[in-house]
Amino acid sequence: MYKLYNFQSSGNCYKIRLLMNQLGIEYESIEVDILQRESRTEEFLTINPNGRVPVLQVGEKYLPESNAAIWYLAEGSKFIPTDRFERAQALQWMFFEQYSHEPYIATLRFWISILKDKQANLNQIEQRMPLGYAALNVMESHLKDRDFFAGNAYSVADIALYAYTHVAEEGEYDLSTYKHIKRWFSRIESQAAYIPIVKI
Amino acid sequence: MYKLYNFQSSGNCYKIRLLMNQLGIEYESIEVDILQRESRTEEFLTINPNGRVPVLQVGEKYLPESNAAIWYLAEGSKFIPTDRFERAQALQWMFFEQYSHEPYIATLRFWISILKDKQANLNQIEQRMPLGYAALNVMESHLKDRDFFAGNAYSVADIALYAYTHVAEEGEYDLSTYKHIKRWFSRIESQAAYIPIVKI
Repeated sequence: MYKLYNFQSSGNCYKIRLLMNQLGIEYESIEVDILQRESRTEEFLTINPNGRVPVLQVGEKYLPESNAAIWYLAEGSKFIPTDRFERAQALQWMFFEQYSHEPYIATLRFWISILKDKQANLNQIEQRMPLGYAALNVMESHLKDRDFFAGNAYSVADIALYAYTHVAEEGEYDLSTYKHIKRWFSRIESQAAYIPIVKI
Repeated sequence: MYKLYNFQSSGNCYKIRLLMNQLGIEYESIEVDILQRESRTEEFLTINPNGRVPVLQVGEKYLPESNAAIWYLAEGSKFIPTDRFERAQALQWMFFEQYSHEPYIATLRFWISILKDKQANLNQIEQRMPLGYAALNVMESHLKDRDFFAGNAYSVADIALYAYTHVAEEGEYDLSTYKHIKRWFSRIESQAAYIPIVKI
């Protein structure tokens, strides 16, 4: 039995919930209210010393990092490319997501729509927004002549990138001109066993 | 034949050079001077639209993202754990490195020792340094009763984390109290076919 240490509006947690639904895996959800700093308690830090959700519990063992967790769950399934180079390309986009995308796209959504504290973060928002658009531009360009990010099929790379991109408007990103990204949203939303993120 | 788009003092590029040496893989190095913005030229952006080094060229195909590249190269070798959960733990630490470590540890080294422009970045340095120490603390705690990061053996996770940690002092981090991290440095530096990073 899997357990998921979960915060409902986190895109990183949503990645795991979406994939588990698509793999037909049952799990117990343990809610961790990060706004109440429940991921920084002494007890939680024994689960993940890095003080973040999600954490996937597998038996008695804990696996932090959303993209490591979806990789673990998807191994041997159609959601990881079988070709060696394409498998590395899936990882390439997952590292891109954590380094060049999440700190800009997800963080603005967190400040503006979850903390509802735009004013206190105006300088940071102004610094980060161009970097978020740069990440969106890289994605838009990649999708111009491709349906998915790796291996020409829906994979963990799409799940990783979809999680925060499709709610980027909650971080005040304007997606109206990103037509390839928006078509990619539709392709993902038509996958079997798709579930939406929990609305803020 | 592999080609590596390479900047000598980049820790991300060093990860690939170190692993290739340990795997006995020959490659051609193509120097990209990021200080001259050579990773942002129109030509380079066709190789990596995200405008960063390293990029590993495999035949006619390009693979950006250092951790994806070392995963690709190490597949099937002793540098990736054979156990499924331990393999996911290796990825966990590689995602930790890109999200919670590199933006703080590597970036300060870049500003202070590579750009030699500490003054212009003082505010950012002050904001980021505590987060770098937080990452070092997570590592120190993990290594208290373990020799390596995943699977109880030297792996791609150690390579990913070693690259910038062992030169953290070039970003003015004080490592003197991190005795477990320093012992781990020695274990890595005694691995067969170890090569040092190119000194700034």
